[in-house]
Amino acid sequence: MVSAVQRNRIKKVFAEVENDGKMVDVILFVNSTEPHMDLGFFYVTGLTEGVFEDSVAVVWKNGEGTLVTSILEEETAKKSGFKLHIMESREEWKDRLKEAAGPAEVIGVNAEEITLSKYQRIKETFPNAEIVDISPYLKRARMVKDEEEIERTKRACDLASRAAELIVESIKEGVREYEIAAELTYLMQKHGASGNSFSPIAAFGPNSAEPHYLAGDREAKKGDTILLDFGCVFKRYTSDITRTFFLGKATAEQKKVYETVLHAQELGIDAIAEGVNGAEVDRKVREYIDSTEYKGRFIHSTGHSIGLSVHDGGVLNHKIDLPLRAGMIFTVEPGIYLPGNFGVRIEDDVLVTPRGHEVLTTAPKDLLEL
Amino acid sequence: MVSAVQRNRIKKVFAEVENDGKMVDVILFVNSTEPHMDLGFFYVTGLTEGVFEDSVAVVWKNGEGTLVTSILEEETAKKSGFKLHIMESREEWKDRLKEAAGPAEVIGVNAEEITLSKYQRIKETFPNAEIVDISPYLKRARMVKDEEEIERTKRACDLASRAAELIVESIKEGVREYEIAAELTYLMQKHGASGNSFSPIAAFGPNSAEPHYLAGDREAKKGDTILLDFGCVFKRYTSDITRTFFLGKATAEQKKVYETVLHAQELGIDAIAEGVNGAEVDRKVREYIDSTEYKGRFIHSTGHSIGLSVHDGGVLNHKIDLPLRAGMIFTVEPGIYLPGNFGVRIEDDVLVTPRGHEVLTTAPKDLLEL
Repeated sequence: MVSAVQRNRIKKVFAEVENDGKMVDVILFVNSTEPHMDLGFFYVTGLTEGVFEDSVAVVWKNGEGTLVTSILEEETAKKSGFKLHIMESREEWKDRLKEAAGPAEVIGVNAEEITLSKYQRIKETFPNAEIVDISPYLKRARMVKDEEEIERTKRACDLASRAAELIVESIKEGVREYEIAAELTYLMQKHGASGNSFSPIAAFGPNSAEPHYLAGDREAKKGDTILLDFGCVFKRYTSDITRTFFLGKATAEQKKVYETVLHAQELGIDAIAEGVNGAEVDRKVREYIDSTEYKGRFIHSTGHSIGLSVHDGGVLNHKIDLPLRAGMIFTVEPGIYLPGNFGVRIEDDVLVTPRGHEVLTTAPKDLLEL
Repeated sequence: MVSAVQRNRIKKVFAEVENDGKMVDVILFVNSTEPHMDLGFFYVTGLTEGVFEDSVAVVWKNGEGTLVTSILEEETAKKSGFKLHIMESREEWKDRLKEAAGPAEVIGVNAEEITLSKYQRIKETFPNAEIVDISPYLKRARMVKDEEEIERTKRACDLASRAAELIVESIKEGVREYEIAAELTYLMQKHGASGNSFSPIAAFGPNSAEPHYLAGDREAKKGDTILLDFGCVFKRYTSDITRTFFLGKATAEQKKVYETVLHAQELGIDAIAEGVNGAEVDRKVREYIDSTEYKGRFIHSTGHSIGLSVHDGGVLNHKIDLPLRAGMIFTVEPGIYLPGNFGVRIEDDVLVTPRGHEVLTTAPKDLLEL
């Protein structure tokens, strides 16, 4: 039996399709070889373990689902509650899929995550069906999290927050960026994360002024700004946090930039509530920074939604119309970047609630001189 | 200027296309949002850093290449030596791509790694072009590594081998599987790996009898078989190693299974040389195990090729015709699985050479009682 939680997710996707005046009989979420997985597959099945290479989740408007998967993953697949169609070998893919999907005139696929090869195999399997891209509707459904998704995200946020507190002990003169990145990964996984949500950023000194820097081999030096941006995965749900520290006494400028970013971030967080537009959140943060001497130094969006993917579809940007709804989760992460010198970014994950918001990442944000 | 190494890779892909009697004017390798990246992009550009979301590598038969990428990754992109076409915003994608690709009647794409959405955008951008799937040819080209690829794989193998030796100190009664998985990740990344090549397997006791197990929360107990299967990424190239240990004194049966697997693995490694067929390697390993009392307990292929992906296209299996060529790199990883009891697998990465082979993973394989 498909659980009530999964049923609701499936129905939500179909509702989004119909709200747009479209009709599909069935939706297929099709995994390929790692890393070419369809996150929609894990959204509707709720499966937290397993790879499910070449597996297909077939779902209907009434919330029912069937699963085509290999005999190697049969045991894990049972946890979905979906009816199973087991492949003994890959040659059976089309036959099992035809059985699982039955007659369907209009088939939905997630074009943003299905490979061209798999799409072509679906066309061959259902030569007379019309195939429709449902990716915009899936994205909309995934933006608003249910309780189980929120619980998992909270755990991922806790694990990241804890690492943000513990990592402070390892930040010393001479330590290298990639060592801190490895340590962050370890701290999260040792406490139960299944992986990183993205490659950790550990940027020291002038490297902190590059928002897209990852982690190199620079050694930490007295006076360095230490920018750490990382997150983890817990039962497939992601977190994303940034903290910025100073090794040794912060200069007057480091302090001023830090306090400006922190204030901007608090303005952003405070602005979040159901019914507010995401564009407005970004505007408040941006206008504040642009009212200081650091005008123009905030060079990216205020935040993005997180979920099964750490960039899960929504963006907080003054150019993007996005009415906030309870259950959405966004990063709020303003930064100020002074190229060649240093940069500061502070980031938390924030749940939109009916009454306002809840900050899910809890590591302290007071200016810290190490 | 595109480097000689990259030029050769590009020419190799086109040569594989032509060997099959096909003709394409230009090949496009198209990244989408992580994790939906086209590894062909990194193969032809040689880029080791950066995400390159929505970026496109455009390559020609003469080894030349141009790159469409965002202004945020311009600096990193320069390292490719490709001519750059920079997007200031995503709206410019089609225009920049048209400039970069020029007039082309037949366009190759990597159907195994391009998303349906991106394919549709290419069709819109080049409405009159014929689009051809070059994924089988790319796979063939990638199977045979050049010197730079071999060097990087060796580093990835060294990092994994070192972790296999160091992890032994952490295997004690009471330690949990996920803690060992976290520790393995840390040991590799602390010494310079950029990430895991897959989620580490740490399987204790009866869990070691499930080849697809990942890492749960079982605590190690005296008498447990400890199976660890892991690997890392160094400059985008992967390694993959398995070692099996015993906590406390091994039983007579644990010893017998271990020695049987070790002998089978040595037979497999010894069989590898240029000109041999991969099917023959698998057959030798399988026939040996099937000649013992563990007949039928070796339930997967002997190995797979590694490279930019940890499953890079080739498989050592008696049903698959695959003539080995110098420069190919395979795992050799027989195992014996006794469900509900324990399993043993031993895995190394082996380079095919003109004279025979070279084993790239060097951690000891003598039976170890901890």
